[in-house]
Amino acid sequence: MTRLEVFGVGGLPEITEGMDLARMIVDAAAAQGDPIVDGDVVLVTSKIVSKVEGRTVELDDVEPSDFARRWSTTWDKDPRVTEVVLRESKRIIRQIGPVLITETHHGFCCANSGVDQSSSGAHGRILTLPLDPDSTCRAQRARFAQLGADVAVIMTDTFGRPWREGQTDIAIGIAGMDPLRSYIGQHDPHGHEFRVQEICSADELASAAELVKGNTSRVPVAVVRGYEFEPDDDASMAPVLRDAERDLFR
Amino acid sequence: MTRLEVFGVGGLPEITEGMDLARMIVDAAAAQGDPIVDGDVVLVTSKIVSKVEGRTVELDDVEPSDFARRWSTTWDKDPRVTEVVLRESKRIIRQIGPVLITETHHGFCCANSGVDQSSSGAHGRILTLPLDPDSTCRAQRARFAQLGADVAVIMTDTFGRPWREGQTDIAIGIAGMDPLRSYIGQHDPHGHEFRVQEICSADELASAAELVKGNTSRVPVAVVRGYEFEPDDDASMAPVLRDAERDLFR
Repeated sequence: MTRLEVFGVGGLPEITEGMDLARMIVDAAAAQGDPIVDGDVVLVTSKIVSKVEGRTVELDDVEPSDFARRWSTTWDKDPRVTEVVLRESKRIIRQIGPVLITETHHGFCCANSGVDQSSSGAHGRILTLPLDPDSTCRAQRARFAQLGADVAVIMTDTFGRPWREGQTDIAIGIAGMDPLRSYIGQHDPHGHEFRVQEICSADELASAAELVKGNTSRVPVAVVRGYEFEPDDDASMAPVLRDAERDLFR
Repeated sequence: MTRLEVFGVGGLPEITEGMDLARMIVDAAAAQGDPIVDGDVVLVTSKIVSKVEGRTVELDDVEPSDFARRWSTTWDKDPRVTEVVLRESKRIIRQIGPVLITETHHGFCCANSGVDQSSSGAHGRILTLPLDPDSTCRAQRARFAQLGADVAVIMTDTFGRPWREGQTDIAIGIAGMDPLRSYIGQHDPHGHEFRVQEICSADELASAAELVKGNTSRVPVAVVRGYEFEPDDDASMAPVLRDAERDLFR
């Protein structure tokens, strides 16, 4: 029977642009007595990837549009931040009161295009999501392999959701394993097709990882050990992103 | 640093009405060498609770309404099942094509009011969600305490969600711990308030548990060990259920 171990990787240095993330994770994990091993799922918070990839925006460099300016004034927001949120989005899903739910260029539906005003290193700066999370994960996975560990890599972020209070961590990038586990065509012991057709294990792994990372403890990386998956070099988040045409809430 | 162990509890007998679930879980866990201990979070799939609580509906006993009959004919569904779905709901959130997203009497938003046509023991029968999942969890928690283990109990189900393909397990009942972990008023090392205000750890624990339960392996119970929580005798899912007035997607 499956048995998982979930632990955080702490002791990383302050992250800056251009750093070798996989190397730092391998070293930090070894230093705490938990060397990364084949079959691990390594879960990296998007924020540190954004820092490594220089996805910082200096607010002084941002010229807000009229649209951003007007809405921001109404709701007492920084129009430069609003401008960045709009630039990071391909459509607005809800704009009700001070809330702005957008679909990002990647296809993620979330508040404020995932733009992070907290802990970006200094006031006057904000962090945007990595440009191509799947591609980052593939590169990180290749780097882990160079360093001796055949792992899957998942990039995570903390998103809200309709209907329920409280945010959860979900996957925004993946490499090395399919984000979905399918039961399509399988039957239960009584011959019924399963009501559950596909599980988004990538999101469940992201959630499991959040439980050990927390948001105040400054542990931006976690490992899930013992989760069985088929290695898949072509994996991406694409199958998780529901087509707008199939979606009832966009 | 937090370190979690997540494992399934297998070897439970076929579940029937009136069984002592906590007793069976304690015995099965001990039998597999994983006795339940103080501080464990025990996660129980709603389906077995529904069976214990006799939430089976015999379809032959169901008289569909005209509304249920007409819609079911259009979409080639069993009108008796539709009738049960409607009875289990307090409002319809979306009814588009063959899809019926409802809000249950408990306040959960999901497909088909969580009615389960698979593995309910026989064709011609379906399972509905437990009537009062929080109250069940409280009773189970008290029973675990009698049996010597001070645990939190979470009841889980597998729900879809807007925007993303693949379902995930979430919490529908809880006892012994707050379902939310709050960061409100806390600040990051740079003095910014956290963007993340509240994490729904109950849902994240449910997702972690699903990774070891799976849906075909017939492991309806999992344990998360090592998760720190404040024991809370008054906990319930109520704070997770967003008020319809605050919700942008109902």
